[in-house]
Amino acid sequence: MPTDFVATRAAFALPEGVIYLDGNSLGPLPRAAAARVAECVTKEWGEMLITAWNRARWMDLPRRLGDRIGRLIGAEPGTVVLGDTLSIKVYQALASALDLRPDRRVILSDTGNFPSDLYMADGLVRTLGQGYELRTVAPEAVEAAITPDLAVLMLTEVDYRTGRRHDMKRLIEKAHAAGALVVWDLAHSAGAVEVDLAGCRADFAVGCTYKYLNSGPGGPAFIYIAPRLAAQVRPALSGWLGHEAPFAFDLDYRPGAGIERMRVGTPPILQMAALEASMDIWDRVDMADVRARSIDLSEAFLTGVEAACPALTLASPRDPAARGSQVSFRHPEGYAIMQALIAHGVIGDFRAPDILRFGFTPLYTTMADVKRAVAILKRVMDEQLWDRAEFRARAKVT
Amino acid sequence: MPTDFVATRAAFALPEGVIYLDGNSLGPLPRAAAARVAECVTKEWGEMLITAWNRARWMDLPRRLGDRIGRLIGAEPGTVVLGDTLSIKVYQALASALDLRPDRRVILSDTGNFPSDLYMADGLVRTLGQGYELRTVAPEAVEAAITPDLAVLMLTEVDYRTGRRHDMKRLIEKAHAAGALVVWDLAHSAGAVEVDLAGCRADFAVGCTYKYLNSGPGGPAFIYIAPRLAAQVRPALSGWLGHEAPFAFDLDYRPGAGIERMRVGTPPILQMAALEASMDIWDRVDMADVRARSIDLSEAFLTGVEAACPALTLASPRDPAARGSQVSFRHPEGYAIMQALIAHGVIGDFRAPDILRFGFTPLYTTMADVKRAVAILKRVMDEQLWDRAEFRARAKVT
Repeated sequence: MPTDFVATRAAFALPEGVIYLDGNSLGPLPRAAAARVAECVTKEWGEMLITAWNRARWMDLPRRLGDRIGRLIGAEPGTVVLGDTLSIKVYQALASALDLRPDRRVILSDTGNFPSDLYMADGLVRTLGQGYELRTVAPEAVEAAITPDLAVLMLTEVDYRTGRRHDMKRLIEKAHAAGALVVWDLAHSAGAVEVDLAGCRADFAVGCTYKYLNSGPGGPAFIYIAPRLAAQVRPALSGWLGHEAPFAFDLDYRPGAGIERMRVGTPPILQMAALEASMDIWDRVDMADVRARSIDLSEAFLTGVEAACPALTLASPRDPAARGSQVSFRHPEGYAIMQALIAHGVIGDFRAPDILRFGFTPLYTTMADVKRAVAILKRVMDEQLWDRAEFRARAKVT
Repeated sequence: MPTDFVATRAAFALPEGVIYLDGNSLGPLPRAAAARVAECVTKEWGEMLITAWNRARWMDLPRRLGDRIGRLIGAEPGTVVLGDTLSIKVYQALASALDLRPDRRVILSDTGNFPSDLYMADGLVRTLGQGYELRTVAPEAVEAAITPDLAVLMLTEVDYRTGRRHDMKRLIEKAHAAGALVVWDLAHSAGAVEVDLAGCRADFAVGCTYKYLNSGPGGPAFIYIAPRLAAQVRPALSGWLGHEAPFAFDLDYRPGAGIERMRVGTPPILQMAALEASMDIWDRVDMADVRARSIDLSEAFLTGVEAACPALTLASPRDPAARGSQVSFRHPEGYAIMQALIAHGVIGDFRAPDILRFGFTPLYTTMADVKRAVAILKRVMDEQLWDRAEFRARAKVT
């Protein structure tokens, strides 16, 4: 059954008069999330209190939600678990992968990776000592840099700035042929593009849920380990909820079954309640439909802006197959332009030094939204609406 | 002004007919939390969307809440930050402390520590390799085991099973004299007993907020670093929000100012909204009053149960000065007894293998509650109400 995008759009609470092209940064509120979170707060926490860990099934939420997300990224059942933040999940996956290649010392990544992934790798390399090394190359140089000394290739599939998409299947094959493992960050992939982890023979993958998956601010991250590897993984962050028997309170750590061992501490239940409401929408969505519509929307925006705003330079690949679900443009006054756009009802975001970033999220964005956004951007550029003190102020936080 | 415990009790939503002696596991719902979380969901997330990171001041919530918690544990302003889970914070503190003692290899802890702390230390020791070692002794043997080879002493101040409390000031002095640093887990201390981190010259401390501090299921943890040490700390979990300039998206990690560097990824905003509502209550509370009342309640329970239930063996220290804010008893059928108690409206919890654990939380527990709890426990024991199939079932989760 084809995805009903009229129904999915109706399922989100979108502010009147706003065109939201920033669902790749913080997804909007699923209407049902307000009630679901309220129920979790007042009925579960408020009335069941501690017994809700059993009675409201809080304890296995990270696994139940993991399977629902797993379907969207081509993961086998029982291979995905929720928890922590994406940076922590990157650390776990990378530490686990390095541990499986004990005679190698090199992590390869690219300079287009999200900085936090590189920072976490830095911290791990320093903690490991003993000659470990993080090597970074330009995104387009990754394939050629896969050498036989590589322990782990660590990449974000879709570049947070430009939307450039790596060829997951090809890079995994190349890395495996060199004897390396691969860690994928799906922050800009999950719910955005078709991902086939099992079909690509992926090893590890991590991602966040507050972007395309609409779990709300600070929603938990997820981690995937291939079934062929999970039982060999020795967790670096060996927390009690990843223990084989957390409530035995043994003094010695024994990893839990499969992906369970990637759990660490007590999961954020209120955030997960919001994610449940979002997954009720996603459960009825076919990622092939999402991808087709994402390309339609992105192409319309890209060609529309190129025609209407010659001062903006395309920063994303022109070929939709080489892009995720975002389109980015460069301009030296990108920050001020984005502020002016937001003031005129089109919310995208700015990424230093000069990137205007627009995310396309078919669940709630329509072709009419895209056309209006192009028209407003054209007006901002034509009339230089960005060239006002309030928009040019340097203070920028998100 | 003395703490108004009538007002604090009225500020919590406690289910009718329940005596809740498990606030040391999951604190109850502050009445205002439902509205505060709903506001965060519908007004901030729903309407402000991405702009709420600035407009609703989400970005500095971890620091603002850190200062409010800091007051309760004797921390200097600007030394506490929220985020992640307690297990992650243990890892961060321990890794940081070890890094400050590069020529030493030994972590000392005790067998009464919460297992996750030991598990996290295990994982870190394995990741570090190079002769690092986690040494554990019985709680009463800790002081004598502080030797000059010690890098870090890692302790939970109040034992999660028995409520036994370490002498923080004395052990810090002893450890410092031996050239070691100390990491304190305040899971059962924050909001439970008077803690004076600055006065004790503490180095590192961590804790959770979902117990005595009532932030709700899976609420974020906190971490403290002494001002004299913070600037020297090189974070092992070097996430982007701990970076000096997260939104510069530089490729190289530079730690943020002071405690900011202990931030990792995107903080859980919905959970923090709940914590804000709880801190609105805590802001009007004096920990000396809490401690005095906690001792009154605990003593009444302890002496009442000893007199009424001779089959139960006290597992906590008899001296209130040597206890936290809980009282524990042992019984071979402890699990079934706790199930029967819960069925009769008194919620405590069970900790393997045989511990019945009762937490005393003066903000909402009264002397009348304590007396009724003793009477109900007496009835459960006298009439052997626990000796029924439904209570003796082995399945236990929390």
